[in-house]
Amino acid sequence: MAKITGFKTLDVRFPTSRGLDGSDAMNKDPDYSAAYLTLETDTPGLEGNGFVFTLGRGNDLACDAIDLIAQTLIGRDLGQLSKAMGALAQELVRDSQVRWLGPEKGVTHMATGAVLTAVWDLISKIAGKPLWKLLSDMSPEEIVELVDWRYLTDALTPAEALEMLKKVQPNRAANEAKMLAEGLPAYTTTPGWLGYTDEKMVRLSKEAVADGFTLIKLKCGASLEDDKRRLRLAREAVGPNVKLAVDANQVWDVQEAIDWINALGDVNLHWVEEPTNPDDVVGHAAIAKGIAPVKVATGEACANRVMFKQFLQLKGLSYMQIDSARVGGVNENVANVLLAAKFGIPVCPHAGGVGLCEMVQHFAMFDAVAVSGHHDDRIMEYMDHLHEHMSVPTDVRNGRYFPPSKPGAGAEMLKASLADFTYPTGPQWKDFV
Amino acid sequence: MAKITGFKTLDVRFPTSRGLDGSDAMNKDPDYSAAYLTLETDTPGLEGNGFVFTLGRGNDLACDAIDLIAQTLIGRDLGQLSKAMGALAQELVRDSQVRWLGPEKGVTHMATGAVLTAVWDLISKIAGKPLWKLLSDMSPEEIVELVDWRYLTDALTPAEALEMLKKVQPNRAANEAKMLAEGLPAYTTTPGWLGYTDEKMVRLSKEAVADGFTLIKLKCGASLEDDKRRLRLAREAVGPNVKLAVDANQVWDVQEAIDWINALGDVNLHWVEEPTNPDDVVGHAAIAKGIAPVKVATGEACANRVMFKQFLQLKGLSYMQIDSARVGGVNENVANVLLAAKFGIPVCPHAGGVGLCEMVQHFAMFDAVAVSGHHDDRIMEYMDHLHEHMSVPTDVRNGRYFPPSKPGAGAEMLKASLADFTYPTGPQWKDFV
Repeated sequence: MAKITGFKTLDVRFPTSRGLDGSDAMNKDPDYSAAYLTLETDTPGLEGNGFVFTLGRGNDLACDAIDLIAQTLIGRDLGQLSKAMGALAQELVRDSQVRWLGPEKGVTHMATGAVLTAVWDLISKIAGKPLWKLLSDMSPEEIVELVDWRYLTDALTPAEALEMLKKVQPNRAANEAKMLAEGLPAYTTTPGWLGYTDEKMVRLSKEAVADGFTLIKLKCGASLEDDKRRLRLAREAVGPNVKLAVDANQVWDVQEAIDWINALGDVNLHWVEEPTNPDDVVGHAAIAKGIAPVKVATGEACANRVMFKQFLQLKGLSYMQIDSARVGGVNENVANVLLAAKFGIPVCPHAGGVGLCEMVQHFAMFDAVAVSGHHDDRIMEYMDHLHEHMSVPTDVRNGRYFPPSKPGAGAEMLKASLADFTYPTGPQWKDFV
Repeated sequence: MAKITGFKTLDVRFPTSRGLDGSDAMNKDPDYSAAYLTLETDTPGLEGNGFVFTLGRGNDLACDAIDLIAQTLIGRDLGQLSKAMGALAQELVRDSQVRWLGPEKGVTHMATGAVLTAVWDLISKIAGKPLWKLLSDMSPEEIVELVDWRYLTDALTPAEALEMLKKVQPNRAANEAKMLAEGLPAYTTTPGWLGYTDEKMVRLSKEAVADGFTLIKLKCGASLEDDKRRLRLAREAVGPNVKLAVDANQVWDVQEAIDWINALGDVNLHWVEEPTNPDDVVGHAAIAKGIAPVKVATGEACANRVMFKQFLQLKGLSYMQIDSARVGGVNENVANVLLAAKFGIPVCPHAGGVGLCEMVQHFAMFDAVAVSGHHDDRIMEYMDHLHEHMSVPTDVRNGRYFPPSKPGAGAEMLKASLADFTYPTGPQWKDFV
């Protein structure tokens, strides 16, 4: 069986701040970036990839963190690892010295996630399956083994998870067939960046509806008057039957969020995303009460499963926006999907940036096949940029994600793109830095 | 006025894992380490120091993070900075790209704290005051300006903080005189490491009582039977009038913590520290209810003021253990001290490691002079190791911390120690790595 023989990290940055794509009330000038890991093996042509997504500065630090954590993988046998991914995840997360730097949060945890994603990428490629299919074909017992149950048992026990998974098991084949035929619903944030003019926002919103999207999300939170006007224009553009959501990217204090949302008037909002600090479970719960019937969505900056557990326990979110490059990789997202199912909360993945759509779709697809099945409330974020750099770009048609069939975890970028956007020496950067 | 002209970081590690000092149920082999920052100025002899405390592996990563964040300080005028430390803290914490890597947690936040501590060290040295005195001499308005109020106002507003500070202002001189004369109470963890034999624990406990300490803390959580025996022996050794606390260092799930503590029997515990994951506010609140009248203490791994806010709101802690090298430096600890005062919860700083006693004492002393005043419930952790490496070591006598009089923030280490313990090239490491 193949062995991991080495690794390299690459600081890859896309100069998105030169336009205003990606601008919101908190993140004014992101350069969508990847601290990109390649795990090398002794099998010709077999490499595994994972990455930490960042906004530019600090991407080199994320590479350093991956270097720290990936070292321990050299010499490991992939046949053995494929049967003990839960143990590997715990080994990396629980390093008795590195753990202090989190625990399970910030750069070291994101790097751990990237490393685990790269191992899963290798295992998926060896199995000849895309990650969603690999996970969906595992037995309930094997899935339960992937999760680090420490700190979760007051909300969900392994036995309860096993029972949930077994209950869905008979429906897996039908769930998969339906998903392959119809895809899973997507929404788009493409029209809604704060840096766009009203005209551009309206034009892109209409295009999004024409493209089949049934939910459109606008960034908000910089100016109440702007938000009112933009939402009114967006509602006029998309008509009464398309859902509208807003995303504040953490700019408000708790009462400010409540007052702001309630001042928007009756624009029939589907959700308000990241109304305040992503650590503030208590605050989100207060906001959820204060803005009902408008719902709260959050999760892209939720550090780990222990934070998600609390958001679910306190009803601080109604839509759980898991992210593929924030938490501790595939294993922790399996935990997150199981937690959401236990509490009856839909998983609505966060995506965009670079490569996030390609990675996170696997968890929604696993959820649809093997955990919560098909329902109307799961909707996956989509943005139409930077997919051209991915080896297996998303297949989004008619506002729906269709599952990838190629093996892997979705993190692999094209070698030409990697060379082109390497920071600061690549051709796309050398005249700017 | 002096300007910051450059900086250097140093990876300094003390090989504490070679003994079993520092061993607990979670942290089995810590090498107490500092990612050590020196800010250089154009004034001969004037340098500022701060550091991230780590357990060894990853200390280099913390140095890299400091490098990333400290760059922005070069060329800054210390006269101007001294009047705008609140603005500087916000500038560093809110970096629109780096923020994604936290936000306000993990390696980047700890590095931000180290950088801010080093600037405060410079300002204290220029003012010719130890940090506690510099803070205690600021006007209530100036103190309020230090805090980043974003995300706090649902629990504490600037106006409320101002009122609290003004109320104590007439007592500041008396509070200071009393503190200079009598010191502030300390407790010791020196006897209680898990790696120690019963005999050593008993001997050190008796010595601690003889040294004047009125609270002794034992590590726990590896074995219930061991914990019962050790607590019984410790109680016999110290008598009925010395307080006993235990520290589980995050090893339990919520129900497990409740069951374990309740199974210890009536040993009259003063507090249980870190019973579960440090992010689990909801879990700590459940544990606090489940083990009453035993109290919960936590905070050394609490990432930021937003987490502390929630611990206070949900009554997840009864003793707030702020740490000097975890959160965003002096500014965030001022916020933490104000939050604790608002909720009537005593600040009982976490210390130990290397240099943590020297740094964190300043916040307890500021609290005693200018915020919550003197009361019986504030007690500061003390460990009797590695102080010989600090430029201004603690002055702990008769179980009490006496305030330092030398200018600075407490983070400065002796140049000989830095050279000796530089990793991996220093004389103390070169034969081991």
